[in-house]
Amino acid sequence: MTDRPHTPVLDRVTYPADLRRLTDAELKQCADELRAETISAVSETGGHLGSSLGVVELTVAIHAVFNTPYDKLVWDVGHQCYPHKIVTGRRDRIRTLRQKDGLSGFTKRSESDYDPFGAAHSSTSISAALGFAMAREMGQATGDAIAVIGDGSISAGMAYEALNNAGHIGRRLFVILNDNDMSIAPPTGAMSSYLANLSKNSPLAALRDIADGVAQHLPEPLRQGAERARELVTGHPKSATLFEHLGFTYIGPVDGHDMGQLLNVLRSAKARATGPVLIHAVTVKGKGYAPAELSDDCYHGVNKFDVATGVQKKSTPNAPAYTNVFGQCLLRHAETDSAIVGITAAMPGGTGLNILQKAMPGRVFDVGIAEQHAVTFAAGMAAGGMKPFCAIYSSFLQRGYDQVVHDVALQNLPVRFMIDRAGLVGADGPTHAGAFDIGYLAALPNMTVMACADEAEMVHMMATAAAHDSGPIALRYPRGEGTGVAMPEKGAVLEIGKGRILQDGRDVAILSFGAHLAEATDAARALEARGLSVTIADARFAKPLDADLVDRLVAGHSALVTVEQGAMLGFGAIVLHHLAATGQLDGGVAIRTLHLPDRFIDQASPADMYADAGLTAQDIAAAALDALGVATIHEKARA
Amino acid sequence: MTDRPHTPVLDRVTYPADLRRLTDAELKQCADELRAETISAVSETGGHLGSSLGVVELTVAIHAVFNTPYDKLVWDVGHQCYPHKIVTGRRDRIRTLRQKDGLSGFTKRSESDYDPFGAAHSSTSISAALGFAMAREMGQATGDAIAVIGDGSISAGMAYEALNNAGHIGRRLFVILNDNDMSIAPPTGAMSSYLANLSKNSPLAALRDIADGVAQHLPEPLRQGAERARELVTGHPKSATLFEHLGFTYIGPVDGHDMGQLLNVLRSAKARATGPVLIHAVTVKGKGYAPAELSDDCYHGVNKFDVATGVQKKSTPNAPAYTNVFGQCLLRHAETDSAIVGITAAMPGGTGLNILQKAMPGRVFDVGIAEQHAVTFAAGMAAGGMKPFCAIYSSFLQRGYDQVVHDVALQNLPVRFMIDRAGLVGADGPTHAGAFDIGYLAALPNMTVMACADEAEMVHMMATAAAHDSGPIALRYPRGEGTGVAMPEKGAVLEIGKGRILQDGRDVAILSFGAHLAEATDAARALEARGLSVTIADARFAKPLDADLVDRLVAGHSALVTVEQGAMLGFGAIVLHHLAATGQLDGGVAIRTLHLPDRFIDQASPADMYADAGLTAQDIAAAALDALGVATIHEKARA
Repeated sequence: MTDRPHTPVLDRVTYPADLRRLTDAELKQCADELRAETISAVSETGGHLGSSLGVVELTVAIHAVFNTPYDKLVWDVGHQCYPHKIVTGRRDRIRTLRQKDGLSGFTKRSESDYDPFGAAHSSTSISAALGFAMAREMGQATGDAIAVIGDGSISAGMAYEALNNAGHIGRRLFVILNDNDMSIAPPTGAMSSYLANLSKNSPLAALRDIADGVAQHLPEPLRQGAERARELVTGHPKSATLFEHLGFTYIGPVDGHDMGQLLNVLRSAKARATGPVLIHAVTVKGKGYAPAELSDDCYHGVNKFDVATGVQKKSTPNAPAYTNVFGQCLLRHAETDSAIVGITAAMPGGTGLNILQKAMPGRVFDVGIAEQHAVTFAAGMAAGGMKPFCAIYSSFLQRGYDQVVHDVALQNLPVRFMIDRAGLVGADGPTHAGAFDIGYLAALPNMTVMACADEAEMVHMMATAAAHDSGPIALRYPRGEGTGVAMPEKGAVLEIGKGRILQDGRDVAILSFGAHLAEATDAARALEARGLSVTIADARFAKPLDADLVDRLVAGHSALVTVEQGAMLGFGAIVLHHLAATGQLDGGVAIRTLHLPDRFIDQASPADMYADAGLTAQDIAAAALDALGVATIHEKARA
Repeated sequence: MTDRPHTPVLDRVTYPADLRRLTDAELKQCADELRAETISAVSETGGHLGSSLGVVELTVAIHAVFNTPYDKLVWDVGHQCYPHKIVTGRRDRIRTLRQKDGLSGFTKRSESDYDPFGAAHSSTSISAALGFAMAREMGQATGDAIAVIGDGSISAGMAYEALNNAGHIGRRLFVILNDNDMSIAPPTGAMSSYLANLSKNSPLAALRDIADGVAQHLPEPLRQGAERARELVTGHPKSATLFEHLGFTYIGPVDGHDMGQLLNVLRSAKARATGPVLIHAVTVKGKGYAPAELSDDCYHGVNKFDVATGVQKKSTPNAPAYTNVFGQCLLRHAETDSAIVGITAAMPGGTGLNILQKAMPGRVFDVGIAEQHAVTFAAGMAAGGMKPFCAIYSSFLQRGYDQVVHDVALQNLPVRFMIDRAGLVGADGPTHAGAFDIGYLAALPNMTVMACADEAEMVHMMATAAAHDSGPIALRYPRGEGTGVAMPEKGAVLEIGKGRILQDGRDVAILSFGAHLAEATDAARALEARGLSVTIADARFAKPLDADLVDRLVAGHSALVTVEQGAMLGFGAIVLHHLAATGQLDGGVAIRTLHLPDRFIDQASPADMYADAGLTAQDIAAAALDALGVATIHEKARA
């Protein structure tokens, strides 16, 4: 436990209304104290520190100027919301961040009226804020809408769609561009270069000499630099920025850590804006905490740490992480196959593609936060003869779903989808859960869907994916460490659509798809302790299904339980469809399909989340007993 | 049958290599003849005429200048590809367009080497072309990559993501912007206004005085207007267009129907470009055919028509189209509930939202080709107190899937999804099939999923959706006409999660979800003719499932058949999951789940496509007999 910081002004603030009673000087001090409190809290919980430190002044200034929660403040991604949570009635719980039964690490509607729109995936804020703005225009009791969006997030197509629509609609709306030239990784793309150009050489705030009068009502010092800055930015004092092309009034760049400047700009914009306004605030990720400012990723996501030294507490891993195994495996394949390339949507480190990137920079494409483009770009490369490995988290691949259907599956192009963070993911909670990919991929003709039971299986499945040129193939694997199994020297190419039996039994068969095999095995042990003989099988493929294996398990056992780390309408449903179509259900099959329940699971440790989901080894064993009629008899006896 | 046009030059062209042997004057004549041939062909087949007529000169010029198919020409959407098909070896089959066993109405890889990347959904071409370009840079045997994209398509976020990435990568790539200021409906959005501004007042071609030397190598007349046009476009002769901000060399606007200008620009660009180039061609949709140029939608999609008069052959509808019933129903609800709004992604006419738009223009939001934004904008409006009806075709909603998951379902916001074109759609083929929505929506917690059996049911389900404020709800319905049932005066709010029994029987139950109820009923008649007693039920809801109804059907019949117009892992799988979870499969349930097969179905009439899919009344009856053991016995007897 670190010493709590001294925060006399912040101590007077429970809700934003309290901020509005402070003087500008007090607001500045409040921001300093809020920064210290944020550092202190995250040192105990871990979390997204760098992003939160970058918006401390913005948080204070927005809540001081706008009338939240009547005015709707929408944080893009939401991982920078820790200071926001502290000043919106949640300071007493801030040290429960990202923990079981604690505060979410993101904005969340069910948590506070000050979180009018939750997030965790990027680039949604402008769309949502425009929705609030139009609800207001149509008579709903809601005030101004303010989106705060990072320079990485605004480069996504979705944000562009929203800017385009907001510019067309032309109604009052505030978009604050939080430009720290750094999302999780350094940003990529032409938009990023453009923004860097807008902000460089502009140490002073600059404002467009706009017709609607925002500029002339600003304090004199802010107005003075306008013409000069405009010339620096666009090459000519009268020419337009990209945002102006899209119909926005552009104000900026302003220093996002200068409280006086922020308050002036926000007050003036609030007083005068009649249409959509983009305020370009330049910030520093990790601002005000030296270890964060100096680190490569600006403490984007940190473990618990020591405030004085910045040293993070790291647990010693017991086994290699799936992400690393993927990255190293891909590098080995790339070394012998020049057609292999990696594609990531702004997550080279998160996906493990940084390993290939470091060794062979030209073989990895970071396309920015752009999952739609990433998938079709991969399809184009595949059509052009390359072997693209498109590494996108399960929940983020939802962003490119139509491209998977229309550009990859329909054309049967050999794109390799590497689906990290499949299943429940822990502290990041339900927004990041990889719950739906088994079903949304397996429903597609031509698609092959694998999941690995452990990190050794992953090596074989990577070899299988590399060798599979006849159509698209997906490999899903969980967040975190493998199981510590011995690793093969070299991956073996698996037969497509064939599972494996790990242990042969007579009474019950447990058929696992993916990384819940350890729980399936534990369940088998529990059943064996009750005298039952248990078969343990690993399906390896959800599609094509190993129908022979399923048929043998059905024929040779009294009960069958399927297990997967995914939602309903996934692997279990494929097994059921097969049994129905082949008439095997006619005579009875005592089958239970265990999957995630039909509700979102709040953050906790993955183990706690799976317990919440009813997917522990005990749950699996109980389902087997139920299928065998044992539990039913037992409960009847008790009744 | 119309008289075939006289086409002496075109008759010498089978493949693009033949074009490359023509003089420029002959190319111009060839384009004129190609236009006549296209009009003649589409008059017999129907199809996307207006778009094809707009790109006749572009088609000839691109194939004459570039070395297709080694150079990769990617048509965005692909519906403008009829002239392209005629000059790439498919003239002999052009009058089979969009028909069973005929040419696809879109580009299609399996149809021709000259279609290197198929399409039908918009805005994918730049991503795909960039994929080819990078494959070339990495040593694959492929040449230049050229994307042709409309001004509507380029306004989508995905196209922006691709431009952003292509500008960043900086390699040679050609993007031809086909700007007719008209996609299906007049385009919307700030980007559209921007493009209109770029092209207005610029009757002559204009070229940027670029550093890489394209301009100075252009013919003198093209060079002369450059400075003047740049000033008109950007307000200053030295300032940059939006595309230049994103890293592209911008060339234009050029007259897309001036063959000489097009050939000059393409030849110069091809000779000199070292990085990404955007060529802005201004075209006229429906160009060269007066009835098309004069019509409101420029003959975007037409039936067969008379070439001399332009009069389309229209079949008399037997029943109101679902799209119209939706549109009129929504208008009635909007008249009494001021919170109701409609949202469309550039399809006001296609979705029927034009009915509300015409009556209450302020209540419909056409956000452009921007499904991602559309869904989250709807979520924002719902959070702001409105009742948004988000009308997006089943296959296009795939574009907004993450937004449905992350912004709507997870936050349990009452967005009403109106999912037109669910199931197989006929001439538009597999790209437009609404095959996957039942599963991809029903897998989501909080989501309610309805499908209507006929247009009267639709009226009740619209009332149900309007009344459902506790979370998101989806209603799926097919393309085309209803069944001609009597229409209710007023919709009744249905009990959520309750189906209905249309006919009570004893032997077999057919449980239909959605618009295949007529086939289910026909199947029942066929079974009755064999002496069986059949129950016919309509599930109405895939989620929540009417478990009581399913249990009664299972308990009271020897066999159960489920029927749906969708892929596996949809309604039938939900029924199976329920039966497994409740132990009903333990003792045996003779159940068959009929759904679309695990392959894409080529275009034909919807009836032919469903026959191909194994979903006729006969197929349903056969499945019932199989489940009863009758067919099996019968076949055994024959064996």
